[in-house]
Amino acid sequence: MVLPAVFTVYRPQIETELRTVTKTNLVPLNNVVNYHLGWIDQRGQPKQSTLGKLVRGTLCLVSCQAISGDYQRALPAAAALELVHSFSLIHDDIEDGSVERHHQPTVWKLWGEAQAINVGDAVYILSHLALLQLLNRGVSPEKVTRCLRVLDEACLELCEGQYLDIAYENRVDISIEDYLTMISKKTGALMAASTCLGALLGIEDKSLINYFYTIGRELGSAYQIQDDILGIWGLEKNTGKPSGDDITKKKKILPVVYGFYKAQGKDKERLLEFYHQPIVERSDISGVVEILDVLKAKAYSQALAEEYYQKALKYMEETNLASSNLRELKELAKFFVEREY
Amino acid sequence: MVLPAVFTVYRPQIETELRTVTKTNLVPLNNVVNYHLGWIDQRGQPKQSTLGKLVRGTLCLVSCQAISGDYQRALPAAAALELVHSFSLIHDDIEDGSVERHHQPTVWKLWGEAQAINVGDAVYILSHLALLQLLNRGVSPEKVTRCLRVLDEACLELCEGQYLDIAYENRVDISIEDYLTMISKKTGALMAASTCLGALLGIEDKSLINYFYTIGRELGSAYQIQDDILGIWGLEKNTGKPSGDDITKKKKILPVVYGFYKAQGKDKERLLEFYHQPIVERSDISGVVEILDVLKAKAYSQALAEEYYQKALKYMEETNLASSNLRELKELAKFFVEREY
Repeated sequence: MVLPAVFTVYRPQIETELRTVTKTNLVPLNNVVNYHLGWIDQRGQPKQSTLGKLVRGTLCLVSCQAISGDYQRALPAAAALELVHSFSLIHDDIEDGSVERHHQPTVWKLWGEAQAINVGDAVYILSHLALLQLLNRGVSPEKVTRCLRVLDEACLELCEGQYLDIAYENRVDISIEDYLTMISKKTGALMAASTCLGALLGIEDKSLINYFYTIGRELGSAYQIQDDILGIWGLEKNTGKPSGDDITKKKKILPVVYGFYKAQGKDKERLLEFYHQPIVERSDISGVVEILDVLKAKAYSQALAEEYYQKALKYMEETNLASSNLRELKELAKFFVEREY
Repeated sequence: MVLPAVFTVYRPQIETELRTVTKTNLVPLNNVVNYHLGWIDQRGQPKQSTLGKLVRGTLCLVSCQAISGDYQRALPAAAALELVHSFSLIHDDIEDGSVERHHQPTVWKLWGEAQAINVGDAVYILSHLALLQLLNRGVSPEKVTRCLRVLDEACLELCEGQYLDIAYENRVDISIEDYLTMISKKTGALMAASTCLGALLGIEDKSLINYFYTIGRELGSAYQIQDDILGIWGLEKNTGKPSGDDITKKKKILPVVYGFYKAQGKDKERLLEFYHQPIVERSDISGVVEILDVLKAKAYSQALAEEYYQKALKYMEETNLASSNLRELKELAKFFVEREY
């Protein structure tokens, strides 16, 4: 996995912050936390880090840097955002029954569902202790409480999004609007919190902070749509997850939602047949994808991701920040819609 | 369920605070939250409230009242503590496979494990949004961040305790010391946070705040031991849970830990036989209890609960607060070890 240059500055520092906050809170379940973060293998041995992309933490720091020229003070927020994301993945993997993430067995697969629920809870709590570290970087308590509210409100939306995501599995009548609401909550909210916290920790200007919030929200939708595309047409060696998994789990990802909306006659009948089974079999994946290909669901999804990306760019321009300030944020945004992992 | 007089003042106000914080954050999963809190039935119809005892919230307000004579400012903390407790019950019921709580089907039993994980997460987040309401009651941001740290550190211990609780299920070599560490984390930490937050919101005196923290910790152990006793010898109509459930789930509750420690010869062999089965059957409960009765495990457990209760009383005396100030706290403490539900 080769990440674009924008990641190289911030990534090691977020990782250091993450190691600090997880180390200072030694708990019996620390091994599991460190395994999930990709620092040790399942036998507890240190290994080449397989930490994720750290998209949310990077987005936060890049936003802070764009707005104030100093991202250091936002490091605890970056760590907190990554821990929230980690917690949501641990629980998501149980909810979806996913057995692999980042090419590794998932936490529940190794330690059982009960402990995985527990470990996810602990990681969520660590995110809040990470955020409180802002107090040690000279951020005022008043601002810290504002940051906490931003984070918690995003987390609540994330849970709502997850709720909808699961509730939609057994439905075939999800409109594109339903879908967009769901991903705005499931993914957009935490991305919005990422850009917002970066801005909030850099300046006071409310209008600019709002712009950054909105930029994150749009980018979140772009990111999720690209994720949906990769879930079907991406390569397992890049994504770390078996492709087609979203189909077997009846996830209402954009290409499928579009498929149900667009398909007619025989195609519609076949789609309904696939999805009216108790589970969609792996052997059915190619049949589903065949229909989606005929309907050009990939191109439609790409165009919609591009639309969100362009909206984010437009809001960036409206901030009137110098283009040199926005360079990294734009690089990151471009990665969101072009990435293959 | 008739609660002692000390509950009557505080309970309605905590409930009002809880209704406010859950109402102002309307989410698709709100129905499930309201069901768990006992306000609506599974069809979404309002019903006679079956909200729990609100022990932690009451403990917080009583502590604040004891120390400052004004508990109103601590109401958001009381609501936050109750929401943390609720979140832990929702997840605990999944982890333990419990099908009933407060005489009602548990959340996972009705909505499935995936949504129950999700709803538990949301309730945990609501607890933090509840605590942030302190800012609207004139509590300084600096103090609010201290409260958040107290709450989060307690929550992390709670997760550790849960982790140990589950990890101990398949072991028969748990010492009484192991057990005491486990319950101090699983139950004591949040009780300590309850008394501590009440004190912290009432005064500045660090030594007094520490006393209250310790009082809650001791009371937590007393409370949990009584819970363990009720889990075996309590009546289902009082506890709301089938008695003996802790035995079938191989929970290392105190009477059982003591049983394994004390049993010899044939009794020990029979105990090991019961617990070396993949699951302990409901038909085995009476056999296990028979051995525990012979070993006087109930009396031993009661004596240990009494010891923690007495320690808490001793610390209360050491605060040098007037006995009129401590009256309610003592009443509550007494209930912890004498309750039958």
